[in-house]
Amino acid sequence: MGGNYFGTIFRVTTFGESHGPALGCVVDGCPAGIPMDMDALSGELKRRRPGGGGPATTRIEEDIPEILSGVFEGKTLGTPIAIMVRNTNQRSGDYDALKDVYRPGHADWTWEAKYGFRDHRGGGRSSGRETLGRVAAGSVAKAFLREYGITIRAWTSSVAGIEVPGPEDPGFDLAEGEKNPLRIPHRETAVQVLEVIEQIRADGDSAGGTVSCVVHGVPPGLGEPVFGKLDARLAGAMLSLGAAKGIEFGTGFAAATSRGSIQNDRPIPAVVKALGLPLEVPGAGYQSNKAGGILGGISTGMALEFRVAFKPVPSITKPQQAMDRRGMVQELIIQGRHDVCMVPRAVPVVEAMTALVLADLLLLHRGARIRTEQ
Amino acid sequence: MGGNYFGTIFRVTTFGESHGPALGCVVDGCPAGIPMDMDALSGELKRRRPGGGGPATTRIEEDIPEILSGVFEGKTLGTPIAIMVRNTNQRSGDYDALKDVYRPGHADWTWEAKYGFRDHRGGGRSSGRETLGRVAAGSVAKAFLREYGITIRAWTSSVAGIEVPGPEDPGFDLAEGEKNPLRIPHRETAVQVLEVIEQIRADGDSAGGTVSCVVHGVPPGLGEPVFGKLDARLAGAMLSLGAAKGIEFGTGFAAATSRGSIQNDRPIPAVVKALGLPLEVPGAGYQSNKAGGILGGISTGMALEFRVAFKPVPSITKPQQAMDRRGMVQELIIQGRHDVCMVPRAVPVVEAMTALVLADLLLLHRGARIRTEQ
Amino acid sequence: MGGNYFGTIFRVTTFGESHGPALGCVVDGCPAGIPMDMDALSGELKRRRPGGGGPATTRIEEDIPEILSGVFEGKTLGTPIAIMVRNTNQRSGDYDALKDVYRPGHADWTWEAKYGFRDHRGGGRSSGRETLGRVAAGSVAKAFLREYGITIRAWTSSVAGIEVPGPEDPGFDLAEGEKNPLRIPHRETAVQVLEVIEQIRADGDSAGGTVSCVVHGVPPGLGEPVFGKLDARLAGAMLSLGAAKGIEFGTGFAAATSRGSIQNDRPIPAVVKALGLPLEVPGAGYQSNKAGGILGGISTGMALEFRVAFKPVPSITKPQQAMDRRGMVQELIIQGRHDVCMVPRAVPVVEAMTALVLADLLLLHRGARIRTEQ
Amino acid sequence: MGGNYFGTIFRVTTFGESHGPALGCVVDGCPAGIPMDMDALSGELKRRRPGGGGPATTRIEEDIPEILSGVFEGKTLGTPIAIMVRNTNQRSGDYDALKDVYRPGHADWTWEAKYGFRDHRGGGRSSGRETLGRVAAGSVAKAFLREYGITIRAWTSSVAGIEVPGPEDPGFDLAEGEKNPLRIPHRETAVQVLEVIEQIRADGDSAGGTVSCVVHGVPPGLGEPVFGKLDARLAGAMLSLGAAKGIEFGTGFAAATSRGSIQNDRPIPAVVKALGLPLEVPGAGYQSNKAGGILGGISTGMALEFRVAFKPVPSITKPQQAMDRRGMVQELIIQGRHDVCMVPRAVPVVEAMTALVLADLLLLHRGARIRTEQ
Repeated sequence: MGGNYFGTIFRVTTFGESHGPALGCVVDGCPAGIPMDMDALSGELKRRRPGGGGPATTRIEEDIPEILSGVFEGKTLGTPIAIMVRNTNQRSGDYDALKDVYRPGHADWTWEAKYGFRDHRGGGRSSGRETLGRVAAGSVAKAFLREYGITIRAWTSSVAGIEVPGPEDPGFDLAEGEKNPLRIPHRETAVQVLEVIEQIRADGDSAGGTVSCVVHGVPPGLGEPVFGKLDARLAGAMLSLGAAKGIEFGTGFAAATSRGSIQNDRPIPAVVKALGLPLEVPGAGYQSNKAGGILGGISTGMALEFRVAFKPVPSITKPQQAMDRRGMVQELIIQGRHDVCMVPRAVPVVEAMTALVLADLLLLHRGARIRTEQ
Repeated sequence: MGGNYFGTIFRVTTFGESHGPALGCVVDGCPAGIPMDMDALSGELKRRRPGGGGPATTRIEEDIPEILSGVFEGKTLGTPIAIMVRNTNQRSGDYDALKDVYRPGHADWTWEAKYGFRDHRGGGRSSGRETLGRVAAGSVAKAFLREYGITIRAWTSSVAGIEVPGPEDPGFDLAEGEKNPLRIPHRETAVQVLEVIEQIRADGDSAGGTVSCVVHGVPPGLGEPVFGKLDARLAGAMLSLGAAKGIEFGTGFAAATSRGSIQNDRPIPAVVKALGLPLEVPGAGYQSNKAGGILGGISTGMALEFRVAFKPVPSITKPQQAMDRRGMVQELIIQGRHDVCMVPRAVPVVEAMTALVLADLLLLHRGARIRTEQ
Repeated sequence: MGGNYFGTIFRVTTFGESHGPALGCVVDGCPAGIPMDMDALSGELKRRRPGGGGPATTRIEEDIPEILSGVFEGKTLGTPIAIMVRNTNQRSGDYDALKDVYRPGHADWTWEAKYGFRDHRGGGRSSGRETLGRVAAGSVAKAFLREYGITIRAWTSSVAGIEVPGPEDPGFDLAEGEKNPLRIPHRETAVQVLEVIEQIRADGDSAGGTVSCVVHGVPPGLGEPVFGKLDARLAGAMLSLGAAKGIEFGTGFAAATSRGSIQNDRPIPAVVKALGLPLEVPGAGYQSNKAGGILGGISTGMALEFRVAFKPVPSITKPQQAMDRRGMVQELIIQGRHDVCMVPRAVPVVEAMTALVLADLLLLHRGARIRTEQ
Repeated sequence: MGGNYFGTIFRVTTFGESHGPALGCVVDGCPAGIPMDMDALSGELKRRRPGGGGPATTRIEEDIPEILSGVFEGKTLGTPIAIMVRNTNQRSGDYDALKDVYRPGHADWTWEAKYGFRDHRGGGRSSGRETLGRVAAGSVAKAFLREYGITIRAWTSSVAGIEVPGPEDPGFDLAEGEKNPLRIPHRETAVQVLEVIEQIRADGDSAGGTVSCVVHGVPPGLGEPVFGKLDARLAGAMLSLGAAKGIEFGTGFAAATSRGSIQNDRPIPAVVKALGLPLEVPGAGYQSNKAGGILGGISTGMALEFRVAFKPVPSITKPQQAMDRRGMVQELIIQGRHDVCMVPRAVPVVEAMTALVLADLLLLHRGARIRTEQ
């Protein structure tokens, strides 16, 4: 994967800085004939908007997408789909004080080290706002995956060390999570996290957390060994997100402390299948999914399952020691609008990146055999 | 990243199945003029050899590399460097029983689902033996990085839940780890792990673990935002390894439970620098390295630090339930030579993949500014 | 090269259909710190505009470019540079009659065969208007090449079989060619061609021609053997233009009828060099340039020279036999605004594609040796 | 296209220098299940061998291919197919005199300018012998295309200005051309050319020529607009060949002197189709094929037709002026084994590159629509 493009066939390029004229994406290699729903696109952008993050965030933008090319009479043409969102609510003045100071935990210093020149306003392209182009592109990918019955659902699975009960818990409810600005699909935990976030905000500090993602409907066979494996592609996609510090698939790090006899998922006996008991994928079912739906870098037909760790937002209101352009250290108090916890806003971005990976692998998979019937 | 190639400029293609005629790699885009040391190459291959794994492994192969092209009078030509290792010690007969059965936890079923046809002998290309080409290519990348003073060191940091004390521990000794077939750089822990492995072997079971990696000498500025970020590239590289189930950078998953005020590394005050106290990178030093040497996907100049989780070897000698080609479940007892724990052998592979990522990013970084003085 | 992206490091994606909302490009991988001149960008777009083509063309559009990202305080940031031009003067109604008919010599039928669905208005993305994104991107590439003293000049070198005298002719004047809507750098020939074009227009027919291109200041060493050779890259770039049917380098097709003793350019004797006689590149000079500045796919340091053949515009006003969607043949009379000869408008596009190739190869060349001083 | 890899999905990397240990290729992305015929592979290599060039060439090598990976039980596995040919008949001593001199018309100087270091023996990787890996890879691509009924045939269409009559001539016979070391499919012309070549050899000089190529069975729809158009890809492929100086499609350069009314191929009337008269592709037939089977960069379903120009072999036995490492000009008499005309040997290479382009585009085309039935 290069600088600002992602994918081999279903290939996305994103553009835009936090306080420049516009952000967006170009999706190249999307098959022709896919119905494009502007409401779905707008809805995805709304999910990542600060307004969607309620108490955890404060910057409000409209984020109205415009499709510049690639769609005709409501369907994709097979040509590049360019989507643009103009920046409108830019309070660039907030950042004047940061022109010559590198904010701790941010990419200010490293971008300057790399390019020798940077847009200091809101972090320029290192801003979380950059994910807007990813979400727009992900919306196109989701429309393609919908044709194959593939559905991607992510949620906030922990904040500041508070674990959210998972799908096995009776209180787990993804619809609830979507109503909830924290994207926590468990009402009681959401209330608890809300209190913790307010406390952290009062402390002038910030919180991290994890996002979990489950994908249903993935056919067996996706993933391009040995370097384009499904988990390799997803890991590369997720770690390209600003504050991501780790990823794990299935049982993940816990697998490293376990035994082979425990980690090997058992196949479902034929007699069970014969009785017509519900199996996710007939012929490929396992009694458990410790593998997270991936073996040897290829989808098994079980649900994909992974979890991404995000560090706390580096912008805190507490005074901090910061390096400046002359190499001196000075005290810095960060002004402006900042999330206490950006994990809820990462939820649609994790889904978008997952969609981009799967759309590309679905198309690449068409090359696996002499003839394809996909 | 595609199927079997890796990288954008420093671009590697690997080839070979576990029991085919040969394995190897072609390194395209390696700069001209790099001294190539056959002993270093052979040494790297020896490190990943089962013989290097002592009690944990049993298959012995010579793995003698042959450079087929790209090197002339001991230096790289700038042309593709092809390296081949012939397979010699193939006991293919061991695998006859596995022709129609899919081993649990292995990629047998998923590869057949993808390609409709597979080499069942030793897992074909899904075998860990495939990493041989990666290690050979990594040896070339290391030779290039050596010119820049970049050194990569990985080690076994946990096995079966037993944590190995880290570099901050007085007993930590990487040289010791290299003598040690477990690649555990801590003598007492190595002894303890050895006992546990023998117990697990006696149980007919297998163990997982983690590999930690530290890279010194990385200049600030490496990494190609936003999709080719340093951590994104490393995550993609590591999760392309057979049994990898997770990765974390710096404080990793622990960061998700922490606060911004704790996770933001503090810069080193100028007065400390003025006193000439040792700093890893003058002008870029931090008092801690919770970021793992990466901010915004770009190297900070501090050491790179990350950890990879590997699941237990799926081949266990205990009887298991396995699915066969007809979709029936049968009892399977796996024969043949297998590691109880492959983590030690993953150590040179983690280093090799790290080298491939860094070599590519070092070359890509040359394009960051109008003129380059690298 | 993929569908709609071009380049490896300096990588461009273009988007837009003839009658969609907008066209444009995203330039990814452009180094930071390059001064971007809006006037130069507008000037390039003006050169490819029909208004620039005078008697040969009739459609008028404003083509005002907007830079959406990647430029800050007048310099490139190293982030993606997105440039958009809105479509304004769309007389889509002109194309209603063409919804179910495939225009002869156009891509109507082949695009429908490929994608099963197309935007029939003005050819959609198969329109010559698609080159607008290329010219915008080429303007960025030219700004980069300017830093290296590389200048690209193309011109109309023949129309309808009338050859334009070349640089060796005293009447050859590139500045004259730029004033001239035919881009013919030879006043008398321009007058002659003008008359021929008017005659062809009166006949309801159209004309083809050739564009020649010369690049000065190319340092020796550009080109990535064996598949990314300089001539291979240029050939791929030029044949990606709508009506291009051939390309030749240096003496080209004539070389195929010649002898080695004639085609091998002779080096300039040291004595001549010692006398300080002007040489294009000291140490690399040849007495002739039959190679067109390329040997073994790598620049020699002499001027690059090549010529591209364009077929006549397929849209003619004469009645033609055309296939329709049902497979029937009907008589077609094409309405709308069409060039009699699009060769003059191809001139800036040939330059733009040349700039894109050279910018990419210049950056790739930085990877040729251990250390680079470029 | 990068340095030594070619293609996006069906992706080939070649390796090897003229006098290094071995040459070969790795084919990545070839679908699984294709029957691989060792005889076909050997046959292709034999066609490009000097022995196949009879009077025009003199170096004899065995060129025995070995498949190192990717084929199991006679069929492709979907894994990388590595093919190696060892260099055996290396008279490196012939080249000692060339260590410090740059042969005129060769890539000696440009490679040294680029890499600062080169293998001077036989031109190293700039040797025509490098095409061996291409032909091996092309043989795999041909096996894939055979499954789709696509056949590629090239031939020597002119030598030293003598034009070989084309397929419309009654004496044209491709089988004859294959028996004939000159690959001239017209017996009388072959005799005539033979005489001319012997005369040129006696003069100590060399000859150029053209190769024509026709592909039958290409379905409509291949080609990836706008940068991966079928003609763009073929042009890039052909100009990556050592001595290629030009290419033209269909009527080519002649089209540039013609009129639209003449160049637009006329569709075949439905009544003719209804009578069942033979059409190449029902529904897509034209009465002529001036477009060379390509419109808008996409195959029309008609035969692909193009012609490549090759300059004379630069190695001539006549004394020449050559530049040496010190920048001085000295007289050079080239020793060793050299073709007087390499055009006949380019014939299988042109076919191989065509096959590589088509295999890749066939796979890419599978991504054009939501669902594919290919």
